[in-house]
Amino acid sequence: MRFAVFGTGVVGRTVAAKLVSLGHDVLLGTRDPAATLARTEPAGTGAPVAPYAAWQAEHPRVGLATFAEAARSAEVLVNATGGRVSVDVLTSVGTEHLDGKVLIDLANPLDFSGGWPPVLDPGNSDSLGELLQRTFPGVRVVKTLNTMNCAVMVDPARVAGDHDVFLSGDDEEAKASVRELLHSFGWPQANILDLGGIRTARGVEMLLPIWLSLTGRLGHADFNFHVQGA
Amino acid sequence: MRFAVFGTGVVGRTVAAKLVSLGHDVLLGTRDPAATLARTEPAGTGAPVAPYAAWQAEHPRVGLATFAEAARSAEVLVNATGGRVSVDVLTSVGTEHLDGKVLIDLANPLDFSGGWPPVLDPGNSDSLGELLQRTFPGVRVVKTLNTMNCAVMVDPARVAGDHDVFLSGDDEEAKASVRELLHSFGWPQANILDLGGIRTARGVEMLLPIWLSLTGRLGHADFNFHVQGA
Repeated sequence: MRFAVFGTGVVGRTVAAKLVSLGHDVLLGTRDPAATLARTEPAGTGAPVAPYAAWQAEHPRVGLATFAEAARSAEVLVNATGGRVSVDVLTSVGTEHLDGKVLIDLANPLDFSGGWPPVLDPGNSDSLGELLQRTFPGVRVVKTLNTMNCAVMVDPARVAGDHDVFLSGDDEEAKASVRELLHSFGWPQANILDLGGIRTARGVEMLLPIWLSLTGRLGHADFNFHVQGA
Repeated sequence: MRFAVFGTGVVGRTVAAKLVSLGHDVLLGTRDPAATLARTEPAGTGAPVAPYAAWQAEHPRVGLATFAEAARSAEVLVNATGGRVSVDVLTSVGTEHLDGKVLIDLANPLDFSGGWPPVLDPGNSDSLGELLQRTFPGVRVVKTLNTMNCAVMVDPARVAGDHDVFLSGDDEEAKASVRELLHSFGWPQANILDLGGIRTARGVEMLLPIWLSLTGRLGHADFNFHVQGA
């Protein structure tokens, strides 16, 4: 399958590397590829990550393109941009490269402007998943994987025991295809919990504040939520 | 120990019954005891529960009093009121019966005015736990147990396997005393996760929307969250 992964941060890179390891074609999307490749400073809002060019050199099978160029030939889109810029990114792609495609939304609308911890915005009466679906009604949004560290997203076995990933979306066929993709990442079917329509994205995005608290208390991010008794 | 439990709904009743079963003295607090006893209609915002008087007849060791009267002689306070009225309830108690005491806050600020599912308000930049601590600085707020059905609160073994209860609060001694109370309810020490200060109440209150989604999908409330890898 041909994937476009929007966002060249650690989440986008981790998912892109997993997808190519499974034999998929992947283009990472960025605003300005030349500028992304020219950066020499470490990137990232949390722990610093290597400049993109250094990572690219180690992952020659991942291509880099503008958001629109990456989306043009892709069958499946992955939103790994910062949640606060996701609408702008998809606007720059254009509905002609969005409509009819599955958009896997991994992003969280965290506002870092007030320092640490970031505030979820919207937080209670809307969600990024709903906003994307509402703004781009032709794309088939599936919210998933946003509730854990990206290393866990693509390698669930690094957390011992049962733990879960959630699915939210209005398109049942899209959710079924994302379920299969998650299964190929190593997620057991029983740990992929379909919560319902895209409105339930609100609940999974609202897991972020406790996730951030737990990361701080535990001193690591190799954990995940499990619904015991489901 | 002498407890005041504010709120005569199913949560307050369930916690009160557990406390008396453990040998504690318990007064349930309500706005107007005569009116509460006179009600003949089923109560509750979710599944209907028996009128208070019928429940009281089966639990003769639980007393009923005004909020202030219940608090006056209590050593520990439990907030099991609807989260949207909790400040009014504590205001009616008065700081003279609050200051220096531990307040175990089980409530969630859910707004049912727009129908189902209710919206959490505040949801992202404040929490009921913080609001209570800020409004009544002399009381020692510990947010806990609000992330599960009340049957699970007092009988964690009804959900098989490891699952967790969270503690949030600024007063370490108060949290230690609540930890012991939870342990007496049946919670293993390893499943009582201290998240930090009262600000972390935000994260646990924000678990409610996904909890509501899960209840709907599973068709029952005998589940709970577990942090796998903690």
